[in-house]
Amino acid sequence: MAVYTTVDDDALHLFLGKYDLGNVLSFAGIAEGVENSNYLLRTDRANYILTLYEKRVDPTDLPFFLELMETLAKAGMNCPLPVHASDGSVLQELEGRPCAIFTFLDGTWSRHPNRDKCAALGKALAQMHLNAATMTRSRPNALGPLAWQPLFSEVKDHADDLGTGMATQIQQRLDAIIAAWPTGLPEGIIHADLFPNNVLFIGDKLTGLIDFYFACNDIFAYDLGICINSWCFEADGSFNLTKSRAMIRGYNDIRPLSTAESEAIPVLAAGSAMRFFLTRLYDWIHTPADALVSPKNPMEYWAILRFHQSVSGTGAYGIDV
Amino acid sequence: MAVYTTVDDDALHLFLGKYDLGNVLSFAGIAEGVENSNYLLRTDRANYILTLYEKRVDPTDLPFFLELMETLAKAGMNCPLPVHASDGSVLQELEGRPCAIFTFLDGTWSRHPNRDKCAALGKALAQMHLNAATMTRSRPNALGPLAWQPLFSEVKDHADDLGTGMATQIQQRLDAIIAAWPTGLPEGIIHADLFPNNVLFIGDKLTGLIDFYFACNDIFAYDLGICINSWCFEADGSFNLTKSRAMIRGYNDIRPLSTAESEAIPVLAAGSAMRFFLTRLYDWIHTPADALVSPKNPMEYWAILRFHQSVSGTGAYGIDV
Repeated sequence: MAVYTTVDDDALHLFLGKYDLGNVLSFAGIAEGVENSNYLLRTDRANYILTLYEKRVDPTDLPFFLELMETLAKAGMNCPLPVHASDGSVLQELEGRPCAIFTFLDGTWSRHPNRDKCAALGKALAQMHLNAATMTRSRPNALGPLAWQPLFSEVKDHADDLGTGMATQIQQRLDAIIAAWPTGLPEGIIHADLFPNNVLFIGDKLTGLIDFYFACNDIFAYDLGICINSWCFEADGSFNLTKSRAMIRGYNDIRPLSTAESEAIPVLAAGSAMRFFLTRLYDWIHTPADALVSPKNPMEYWAILRFHQSVSGTGAYGIDV
Repeated sequence: MAVYTTVDDDALHLFLGKYDLGNVLSFAGIAEGVENSNYLLRTDRANYILTLYEKRVDPTDLPFFLELMETLAKAGMNCPLPVHASDGSVLQELEGRPCAIFTFLDGTWSRHPNRDKCAALGKALAQMHLNAATMTRSRPNALGPLAWQPLFSEVKDHADDLGTGMATQIQQRLDAIIAAWPTGLPEGIIHADLFPNNVLFIGDKLTGLIDFYFACNDIFAYDLGICINSWCFEADGSFNLTKSRAMIRGYNDIRPLSTAESEAIPVLAAGSAMRFFLTRLYDWIHTPADALVSPKNPMEYWAILRFHQSVSGTGAYGIDV
């Protein structure tokens, strides 16, 4: 739920004078995304998204995100394409915030993605990894493995609120993940947050990948671990191997995983679970009890983490190495 | 800013099976309105608004609101038209909430409406008053003059936080308004909340009246007082007589005000200012300091109230009685 910055109609009118988008039919803040203010702009030619970047986004990262979206869209992927102003620029300013306009993607996200959607997601993820290879910019992963111990140290004192002995257990599991973290796996630009709410479908056809604001350089197969965690566990916490197998096969169809990558899936997925567990724990501790937005329950990701550390091998994911 | 209830895609799909609206292209929560959850639903045929009524709306009021919108839209006004399901019904349930689907109105609201927009608003207000006459249902004004003293009594102890002696001054001004409150003026269904953010324009053409969820039976000219307060004061608190005159003339073009109505404008506008001052004061006191939504400053309406109680007659509004 977002829209932190209000856009004055006079300011909007002046701002849109920099573009050639047609006549405005409607303009409404939309309640998607949590970091930025997003507006749906309809003109007599097309629909657009206007994004105003709020203070949680580092303005120096914006050229990377915009180049990534433009690179992927121009490669034919269903991603928001940054719209250039008449002077050729993409990044603008409105109401004191950096901002940009994007093409609008049709589709709705699926809270319970089925097997076919998981397969389509696997393919799109691999396509993204391949298509981003022509990027000139890079961005380190601020929430990668090096960040987890410092993040945990910040929240450690509250960890036992989740259950007796949790602080100790988290430290042990974190140590195990870091000790087993793979090196030498193929790296490149990853989405790093491709949860179901960032993927649009019409029927089972994938029509959009959105919200690239965690994208960064890291291990490709780690991105697959993030998707396994967010797409293949059911609401009751059970792991759906059929969906995981479909997703990994979809990925393999486009960019075949090496044996080393496949074998690393359990620890990469465990690391992904640790990353989301820790950031959710951080938000859970730092959100006032009466805030309008409820923090997500960190324990969902603790259960996922335990699953990955309990499996005996890649067969649990439907991977046939 | 709203969207309190999240709609599951499976639940949405099942729900839309009750309608004949075409294939869904997109579905996004929009950050407009503060009482309900609103979604923009795009299909391959048209755009719609899906409104889920949250707990601040009394479900027994919904048939009144829906009848009003249907009555006005069928009379040719630019209002959301409730869409009937295949079984003919309008009010449905989704995610445990009462809900309804409406046609989508193009246009954007104007933060600084000019004279032509004020004139158009005056006309539309009068048209609404006339067109609602065929309504079968009615609804008392829960925030009318009888409610103001009880509302003030609830917040009285905090009133001096606004300034020394404010509690006494509010009581005196409230007493003066109630003592002078007119009787026998023409009544009917009023919008009661027709602020600029509830009126859409394309250019200076009025394309939509929305948000009928305060509509009720009361004095017609009181509705004009509400609009004078919300449309004709500048950001610096100054009163723009040019806009007020344009609005009242627009209203008169469609539904001529009687002399008694015109002469009552100062006290009706003062009463409207008191109503919004008191509800803003209530919200200001009851909103936690760290809430995401900042309460509106009640003192804006205190200044408006003082203006109305300081004028010498209807000439101040541009009314030529």
